[in-house]
Amino acid sequence: MKHTTNREWVLNRRPDGDIADGDLVLRESPIPSPKEGEVLMRTTYLSLDPTNRIWMSDIDQYMEPVQVNDPMRGGLVGEVVDSRAGAFKAGDRVMALGTWSDFFCAPAAHFAAVPPVPGLDVKEVFGIYFSVGPTAYFGLVELGTPKIGETLVVSTAAGAVGSIVGQIGKALGCRVVGIAGGTEKCRWITEELCFDAAIDYKSEDVTAALREYCPAGIDVYFDNVGGDILDAVLGQMNRFGRVVVCGLISMYNAKGPVAGPSHYSAILMKRLKVQGFIILDYITRFAEAYRALTELRAQGKLKWRFHEVEGLENADETVRLLYQGGNHGKLLIKVR
Amino acid sequence: MKHTTNREWVLNRRPDGDIADGDLVLRESPIPSPKEGEVLMRTTYLSLDPTNRIWMSDIDQYMEPVQVNDPMRGGLVGEVVDSRAGAFKAGDRVMALGTWSDFFCAPAAHFAAVPPVPGLDVKEVFGIYFSVGPTAYFGLVELGTPKIGETLVVSTAAGAVGSIVGQIGKALGCRVVGIAGGTEKCRWITEELCFDAAIDYKSEDVTAALREYCPAGIDVYFDNVGGDILDAVLGQMNRFGRVVVCGLISMYNAKGPVAGPSHYSAILMKRLKVQGFIILDYITRFAEAYRALTELRAQGKLKWRFHEVEGLENADETVRLLYQGGNHGKLLIKVR
Repeated sequence: MKHTTNREWVLNRRPDGDIADGDLVLRESPIPSPKEGEVLMRTTYLSLDPTNRIWMSDIDQYMEPVQVNDPMRGGLVGEVVDSRAGAFKAGDRVMALGTWSDFFCAPAAHFAAVPPVPGLDVKEVFGIYFSVGPTAYFGLVELGTPKIGETLVVSTAAGAVGSIVGQIGKALGCRVVGIAGGTEKCRWITEELCFDAAIDYKSEDVTAALREYCPAGIDVYFDNVGGDILDAVLGQMNRFGRVVVCGLISMYNAKGPVAGPSHYSAILMKRLKVQGFIILDYITRFAEAYRALTELRAQGKLKWRFHEVEGLENADETVRLLYQGGNHGKLLIKVR
Repeated sequence: MKHTTNREWVLNRRPDGDIADGDLVLRESPIPSPKEGEVLMRTTYLSLDPTNRIWMSDIDQYMEPVQVNDPMRGGLVGEVVDSRAGAFKAGDRVMALGTWSDFFCAPAAHFAAVPPVPGLDVKEVFGIYFSVGPTAYFGLVELGTPKIGETLVVSTAAGAVGSIVGQIGKALGCRVVGIAGGTEKCRWITEELCFDAAIDYKSEDVTAALREYCPAGIDVYFDNVGGDILDAVLGQMNRFGRVVVCGLISMYNAKGPVAGPSHYSAILMKRLKVQGFIILDYITRFAEAYRALTELRAQGKLKWRFHEVEGLENADETVRLLYQGGNHGKLLIKVR
């Protein structure tokens, strides 16, 4: 199939709560031509990530929100088809923070070569190394500072980031308890990923289950969700515990302001450190994460799985899985 | 006046919301006699501090709450009247975390000699160096990590801790904005303590005032209050800002669970570090704080004031001033 036109998802209006039909629209446009210093890539995979919903809103956030009528933003991997920049040539495999589109054209500085990693294919390097793996690594190691014998709890534990956080925690000698939704996810993280325990928040009382599975309290909480689960964990944190605020997925689709945790006073009483984390701040240090991930993979201590959906036209439906807990592994759209 | 009996305030029942008459009762008892290894002190000053209200409640807290029917806990300075421990002898000036009482008897390890500080009297060493000064120093310097040119906001800015935090911030080259209640307090911190600006939360819109006085945003927030003021500050924190959670006075008298800040998501978006702080964790390092405070005092950069009330029998009424913003400076009861 030879494309003569480009397709791109455009933010038609900001979602009010859950993403609804018509918030994003797929538009056709001519394939752009690179100007001097620019690169044109053709997308192979589009990464769908929880943070997409943040960019669609106009709340105060960590980078510019996507503007209404602008193309939706997303992580891409693909091949250079035309380059007017010295750093890249046609055929190069590149990754970029681009747009939900068949083709993406931007100045060369927006692109990075896909680093060769022995034993991994391009999808794995993109899906795991592009942001998910470093997010798990730096968030846990730098902010969570887990110690041997400590108890680590991670939410969205079967998700792309959470599943890697838990495995790094196990490799570092922690007791690891994952919170996930549904029997299949809980079985996967305990049986395949060797977490010490899993809590199914859809069928279990999280507070009671934490008490059972974290008998020595919780030292590190890697939080991807916020909300009630955060509150349940805060109530059982140990003194000098660390909360890594990597995501607040339970709040992203809220229609109004969301009250913070009612166990906020635990921050004082237990001398907790609650720290926000955005992976973009660590871009210059990604090589550290790559080394760690590659080593763990080589030791057989790091597994992952992909949830792959074909067709750019399905991106709008597919991204919603993230907020419904419907994906099983790193969510990707196979564009081509 | 020679006491033949001891008086001590006893926690008669836990307050429900604000402290009410009868929650604490003053009881007479015989003057205790020290057993082997124990020291008997006679109280000169009793320190009243916001944390007293925490100890009176049974919420999950940083040390054991005071039990109903037990003497109320508080910081004391006084003189050894009888000692059966080698470390102290009658006449020694000592400080202790003791009880609200004329006499306090405990094992020698509960007492510390009042360190001699040139130019300061015992009341100043006790009132400022015993906990208030180190609290301000370590909380700001270790957790807040203020940098030259950054903007520091402090709540209860005319209070014992807050006023010192702001002055250390000024000495370290920060723009310092204090939040306090009432014209007199605001005038004191700007005119006497040289804060750059003061916000009277009783008469001003805190959010709007912060916007005016912190045009470059807020880098460090030293929080003693929590609640709405915390929320207003969180909305204007800069990226990588630090929130030192030293107190949550607005929550201490709450009757039920208190919702956390509705700007909680700023922790993620701005990569804030929100960290709880209890001065007891720094006891082994107090000498560092003493050195800093003494140096600032010698340079004329550190002022304080006391709010002194005579008579142990007035402790119950007086401690309530802390939660009403009724004290002007470090609150002490002159017991003798």
